[in-house]
Amino acid sequence: MNKIGILYYPARADSSALAERAERYLTSHSASYWLGAADDDGALIGAAPGLDAVVTLGGDGTIVRCVRVLAPLGVPLLGVNLGKLGFLTEVEPPDLEAALGRLLAGDYRVEERMLVRAELLHEGRVVFNSEAINDAVLGRGATTRTVHIAVEVDGNEVMTQTADAMIVATPTGSTAYNLSAGGPIVAPELACMVLTPVAPHISVAHAIVIPAERRLSLKLVKAQNANLTIDGQVDVAVNPSDEVICTIGRNRGRFIHFCAEGDYYGTVLRRLRWPNPAGS
Amino acid sequence: MNKIGILYYPARADSSALAERAERYLTSHSASYWLGAADDDGALIGAAPGLDAVVTLGGDGTIVRCVRVLAPLGVPLLGVNLGKLGFLTEVEPPDLEAALGRLLAGDYRVEERMLVRAELLHEGRVVFNSEAINDAVLGRGATTRTVHIAVEVDGNEVMTQTADAMIVATPTGSTAYNLSAGGPIVAPELACMVLTPVAPHISVAHAIVIPAERRLSLKLVKAQNANLTIDGQVDVAVNPSDEVICTIGRNRGRFIHFCAEGDYYGTVLRRLRWPNPAGS
Amino acid sequence: MNKIGILYYPARADSSALAERAERYLTSHSASYWLGAADDDGALIGAAPGLDAVVTLGGDGTIVRCVRVLAPLGVPLLGVNLGKLGFLTEVEPPDLEAALGRLLAGDYRVEERMLVRAELLHEGRVVFNSEAINDAVLGRGATTRTVHIAVEVDGNEVMTQTADAMIVATPTGSTAYNLSAGGPIVAPELACMVLTPVAPHISVAHAIVIPAERRLSLKLVKAQNANLTIDGQVDVAVNPSDEVICTIGRNRGRFIHFCAEGDYYGTVLRRLRWPNPAGS
Amino acid sequence: MNKIGILYYPARADSSALAERAERYLTSHSASYWLGAADDDGALIGAAPGLDAVVTLGGDGTIVRCVRVLAPLGVPLLGVNLGKLGFLTEVEPPDLEAALGRLLAGDYRVEERMLVRAELLHEGRVVFNSEAINDAVLGRGATTRTVHIAVEVDGNEVMTQTADAMIVATPTGSTAYNLSAGGPIVAPELACMVLTPVAPHISVAHAIVIPAERRLSLKLVKAQNANLTIDGQVDVAVNPSDEVICTIGRNRGRFIHFCAEGDYYGTVLRRLRWPNPAGS
Repeated sequence: MNKIGILYYPARADSSALAERAERYLTSHSASYWLGAADDDGALIGAAPGLDAVVTLGGDGTIVRCVRVLAPLGVPLLGVNLGKLGFLTEVEPPDLEAALGRLLAGDYRVEERMLVRAELLHEGRVVFNSEAINDAVLGRGATTRTVHIAVEVDGNEVMTQTADAMIVATPTGSTAYNLSAGGPIVAPELACMVLTPVAPHISVAHAIVIPAERRLSLKLVKAQNANLTIDGQVDVAVNPSDEVICTIGRNRGRFIHFCAEGDYYGTVLRRLRWPNPAGS
Repeated sequence: MNKIGILYYPARADSSALAERAERYLTSHSASYWLGAADDDGALIGAAPGLDAVVTLGGDGTIVRCVRVLAPLGVPLLGVNLGKLGFLTEVEPPDLEAALGRLLAGDYRVEERMLVRAELLHEGRVVFNSEAINDAVLGRGATTRTVHIAVEVDGNEVMTQTADAMIVATPTGSTAYNLSAGGPIVAPELACMVLTPVAPHISVAHAIVIPAERRLSLKLVKAQNANLTIDGQVDVAVNPSDEVICTIGRNRGRFIHFCAEGDYYGTVLRRLRWPNPAGS
Repeated sequence: MNKIGILYYPARADSSALAERAERYLTSHSASYWLGAADDDGALIGAAPGLDAVVTLGGDGTIVRCVRVLAPLGVPLLGVNLGKLGFLTEVEPPDLEAALGRLLAGDYRVEERMLVRAELLHEGRVVFNSEAINDAVLGRGATTRTVHIAVEVDGNEVMTQTADAMIVATPTGSTAYNLSAGGPIVAPELACMVLTPVAPHISVAHAIVIPAERRLSLKLVKAQNANLTIDGQVDVAVNPSDEVICTIGRNRGRFIHFCAEGDYYGTVLRRLRWPNPAGS
Repeated sequence: MNKIGILYYPARADSSALAERAERYLTSHSASYWLGAADDDGALIGAAPGLDAVVTLGGDGTIVRCVRVLAPLGVPLLGVNLGKLGFLTEVEPPDLEAALGRLLAGDYRVEERMLVRAELLHEGRVVFNSEAINDAVLGRGATTRTVHIAVEVDGNEVMTQTADAMIVATPTGSTAYNLSAGGPIVAPELACMVLTPVAPHISVAHAIVIPAERRLSLKLVKAQNANLTIDGQVDVAVNPSDEVICTIGRNRGRFIHFCAEGDYYGTVLRRLRWPNPAGS
């Protein structure tokens, strides 16, 4: 571990205080580090190639943004939880120093998570592409109420659906927007995409889980505009007859874990505050 | 193709008429066949080892029962649809002769579908086991209203849920009881189990999709009785503190198809009568 | 307030301890009372005509059973919460004496809740009837997997549905089984019935809210047996072609409250542990 | 019936053809009429005070827009169905002349439907108000992903919910957006509002049915912008800390019917294409 990146929010007191603690710990252990603002993607993009790991001092949203920068470089990431839910964070603030210690000692495992790649085709040409750790969502645009979408898998028609939006989620994203829309929780080691409609017309639609090696096409049926949204953070306008192609990403998100492998389900349990034997 | 089994319902006119047509066709093509009653498992069990394929003249329920007999022997199955929905049937009655012709000519592909194996443990000993093509369901017993179940995956606690029942479905079974309970549709080539509660208490639970190589445990928490049901057809009484272990089956269901591979989604579409571009 | 009935569970330590505290309080205030076992309906039926109010020391299940006895007599009921959720209970154990004091002082309001009347018709004749505070449920019988039910409102066909069960809930019961099945929460002052299917086939059905003055008919379509269950406590076998008629009850449940009227929603909030501004 | 208004779409061939048929019929029966463009609200507003009834030649959207103009004047409306679903339309195109004949003969009944009144309060002052026949929806704004809303009923806190949107639907609107979001179908004669979240965070929320005489408040909790949308047709920007008050409307929508009263449920059945005994 030659150099650790620390991403924090300069304007937030809790995040700044954690950054100071991290600096103090790393300095006292003669570790090399880089300190950057979590809301400055440009700075991270510049620094990332020289980093061996990045620690984020924020919430799931910070991690999600950071993954899209780090995934192509293969740099792993450790999230310290300053948010509410924290499906993706690994460490609570009091444990920051212990976590940095294990990071420096190489005492951790790296879990890889698949991304979903979304390509926007306008008149058959790719005009935008991005890889999402959570989801690519094709939803209504500025002047439309719903989207009317024809879905195909490997060229085979699946359905045409009118809805507020159509979500294509990774297993990681299955506990994000997909869950709000009624989709299933999917174990992160399953290589698949989850297709879930939001508020589907007459509500007959179900979520569909599709192998990651398939090619999923979402085509706007009516002369309407829409939005393609990556991880709830990046919006691109979609024009009538445009097509969104979703496939497995070329890169993978890399997450640093200290817990044992099987703890995924326990984490979901705690995050969702589902009843458990002791607590019910 | 040396010998084809034909399973029909002697008491049903439509099924008997089809059986006669099948006999006539196979006789006129000098093909060897065996004719058996679909509700006589014993006869099928006796005849199956000498058969190269079985044609069922009934509905999905007939196929489901038949698969449990044929899977350990590796004998493939072709379903002619006399039922209402027919997710598992391949051929409609008018096409019977054409289908038999292709069968004799070897002009078909065989699709393998995973089974889920359910083992019932009483005081730590396996007292019952079965492999299901659709689902294993742990539900309320004769004198109980709900079941209170602790769920573990590979020994890691996931949740404790009070519900009418807990479904463990295969991808094939995802369009059966699982769908009624609000679970997702899962593509059949994904190796996974879907865990879906029926009428969960306070309704906070979601379906969870779990890799097939995991070991799923459902344990009765309270001193209550319950039922383990295989494919909606076989019931076994479950006693307080009993445990049901679900894993991937040792055998696989083998289904004869004439259509191209990608048509799975189109079939689901037609079966569920979801809106499509032309028909909406 | 001439005489207060106290219903408790002699075999449960917590309930017995509360009963002792109640006796002590009422004796020291020279109040007349009757002490009965909560699981002995006969005793309550005998004593009820002489009582001015009944205090139950149990959970919602105790209240539900008690209401069916008290409603025809117009005797109001106060629930002390020894259960888990307590939608229907008004008082927590520490506040027992304060509650008895207000009861003796007449310092309370009585809220009336509608019941739903279920009549079972066999060959056109009423062979069973009961009034439920929560719900009447027509569900599968001992040897059946699902029920196939034709629903009519005032003689007009609404739908035919295959499901595990069909729930007819009162507004009070909307937070009970109805909620697990995905039905809506209904304010108790709305005079209506909620019709909600459990695990409906192909899952296209929604809950339907119907005015209480309507006559709802549930008829078994197929030659199948089924069960009619009142408040999850009383089961009656239903035969093929039998019909269940649901109408507003002739009696009303009477609940003693100390809180202000509008607190219904706050109570639901707390019971369901929904996120609130402070706690989220 | 002195004067009938006809609303049609000049640019749509099917609607224009119907308008011609209507003109021909009314002329040949010496009936007075006014012909207006369905997308010109101003023209309708000017003409409506002199009309005894309005016939719309379009879909549910046309009716919904028209009701908001006609309701304050008490003018009843008859919808001829040129749309897909037609929950609100009464007549199919082939029956146009028969319907006009019954209209002229006074051979119909008028059904009144409640509206929901939405008032937008900015710093305590009403800055916008409107009455909706379907729904008032508080949803995300141009730059926000979700809304964080505190809900109160008559000043009592119910919940705080993060969601894509919060729907307040009338019974009439219960089969519109509310249905897509998973809310219940509510019989139109029940005086109530249905509060249904769209894609609620962590998905714990249920629809709540509230008596129409209550005062429902939706307040934006966070410093975020949002949109208030009336019947999916009128959008108003909502600022941080603004409040939306929903109450029963002062006016009522008046719908002309030829069918008997109880047919509401049969209509819903046909519209939703739910399985029925004959067709299943």
